[in-house]
Amino acid sequence: MSHGSGGQMTAKLINDIFFKHFQNDILLKAEDSAVLDMNGKIAFTTDSFVVEPLEFNGGDIGKLAVCGTVNDLISVGARPLYLTCGFIIGEGFSIEQLERIVISMSETAKEAGVKIVAGDTKVIETKGLFINTSGIGDVISSVSISNSKKGSKIIVTGNLGEHQASIMSARMGIENNIKSDVAPLIGLANIFEKLQNSPKNIDNSEISKTAIQTMRDITRGGLVTVLHELCEKSNCGVLIYEKKIPVCNEVKGFCDILGLEPIYMANEGKMLIVVEEKYADKVLEFVKNCLYCENATIVGEITDGSDVILKTLIGGERILSPLYSEGLPRIC
Amino acid sequence: MSHGSGGQMTAKLINDIFFKHFQNDILLKAEDSAVLDMNGKIAFTTDSFVVEPLEFNGGDIGKLAVCGTVNDLISVGARPLYLTCGFIIGEGFSIEQLERIVISMSETAKEAGVKIVAGDTKVIETKGLFINTSGIGDVISSVSISNSKKGSKIIVTGNLGEHQASIMSARMGIENNIKSDVAPLIGLANIFEKLQNSPKNIDNSEISKTAIQTMRDITRGGLVTVLHELCEKSNCGVLIYEKKIPVCNEVKGFCDILGLEPIYMANEGKMLIVVEEKYADKVLEFVKNCLYCENATIVGEITDGSDVILKTLIGGERILSPLYSEGLPRIC
Repeated sequence: MSHGSGGQMTAKLINDIFFKHFQNDILLKAEDSAVLDMNGKIAFTTDSFVVEPLEFNGGDIGKLAVCGTVNDLISVGARPLYLTCGFIIGEGFSIEQLERIVISMSETAKEAGVKIVAGDTKVIETKGLFINTSGIGDVISSVSISNSKKGSKIIVTGNLGEHQASIMSARMGIENNIKSDVAPLIGLANIFEKLQNSPKNIDNSEISKTAIQTMRDITRGGLVTVLHELCEKSNCGVLIYEKKIPVCNEVKGFCDILGLEPIYMANEGKMLIVVEEKYADKVLEFVKNCLYCENATIVGEITDGSDVILKTLIGGERILSPLYSEGLPRIC
Repeated sequence: MSHGSGGQMTAKLINDIFFKHFQNDILLKAEDSAVLDMNGKIAFTTDSFVVEPLEFNGGDIGKLAVCGTVNDLISVGARPLYLTCGFIIGEGFSIEQLERIVISMSETAKEAGVKIVAGDTKVIETKGLFINTSGIGDVISSVSISNSKKGSKIIVTGNLGEHQASIMSARMGIENNIKSDVAPLIGLANIFEKLQNSPKNIDNSEISKTAIQTMRDITRGGLVTVLHELCEKSNCGVLIYEKKIPVCNEVKGFCDILGLEPIYMANEGKMLIVVEEKYADKVLEFVKNCLYCENATIVGEITDGSDVILKTLIGGERILSPLYSEGLPRIC
């Protein structure tokens, strides 16, 4: 508990664990705020992480905390640059486990090209660990959940449901090979510049700056929840094809047994991208070449309706209602 | 628990409570990150709040969360502009109490001139409420904990110990009039410009841009903890005078009974300001005219030693050791 007092014990914890692994010139100044040079439009976001268990197949709360905020920045067309992290630590929490989680954060931050520039530590009597990460990045392109247009194609960057299936497996004590998909989708940051400079430019014409209309990472509540937000904000409908929804065999089996639907399940390394129809194949090709996106696929399109409709395998149409309550707390 | 699922229940909570009170054009876009125009140097900071009780004489966790982050930004010479907030809410938490706290945040944010531009909500099984606030501001002047120079004067902006005494009183069930000092010290933001434009310019000469060397809000661990950080980072010593330390009579009495020292106690609306000696009186006069700073006083000076020394009331000198562990968890 004394690690949270603000005195010498707090300083020791910060030096021994956080500064050691999060080293960078800005953090080490130990000011009350990091001072950064930014010009123009910046993106600013926050996310708290309360996942249980703290370590799971494919990741841990630290990796999740970095990826979640990095992906939220990428979702608005930004290049992620700086993170802060706030730790709320239960008394008696293992220092070894804390250090493992901090190392995981540090490695993920390196992979994502972001610096952790400020932090805070509090200690509480309750067991466990909660991490908040906030992040800023410079906004390069203008995408928005309100910007999807009728006829545009919807790309999902990979297999759905893996994060939730991994957490559920851990909680239920089921042994399988399902790994959380938690990943920083840094290949999708700055996507316009990359597309424009792409040597594989199919028709050699410049890709329009408005080609990509919406990006949104697909987390809690799954694909359907994102699609409902999109319909509401972009004032449109959506049609997706069940046969196109990418799901790996193991998650498919897991879902069949438990009666779950991957389109409602949480992911931590998947993006939804809405692209103007004529650029859809080119963007898909680009996306498939990004790390963690090799299974990207076009799952459907924007319609002039207002519902989220699933074309089922047998050819029927089903209106997908929004998730009301999934009953799976502490998924991220 | 379903309020944390990411589905409709989460959306309802966000609309009914957070959007309702935190209304502004940026937040209402409901993107994954807020997009903001910033130019030049910006300050970026984070803080988590776990105070218990959640509501206390003089404030609540929401007011604390806004003030803490606002004051951290002011500490590096920034003008606070935008906040994010992350809520971790215990299952079964009273919606009425949550709304009271959110209203308190909203009012404090208005007073401080900051907008809450992004947020996040998680629900856990544990009881209680934790709030993280992160903030950004534009940096106008350059102050640093590493920048204090020998001979400079140390201003404390008001009476010490009130926040901690208020929290302790609440926990111990002691009835008294001690109010937490929690406040946004917004009058101290942008202090240089204000000083330069001050009509009360004592000698009519422009105040030097380097007049104010260090600002730091005095929170957990109290004045002595800040002074130790300052000595370490600025490579100096400090002499403070016991008779100059501002403490109100009620806190003095409270401390006498419990054997506490106000210089080690937590505050939530007090700043330490180190000023070049020749400008000290002018800056003090300015500070005393700022809201929440009327009891500001010069408590000591920077020395060429390395210790934090207290000149006692009876004329002796006492080396003040850093706080090791104060045994008062969840003070902020």
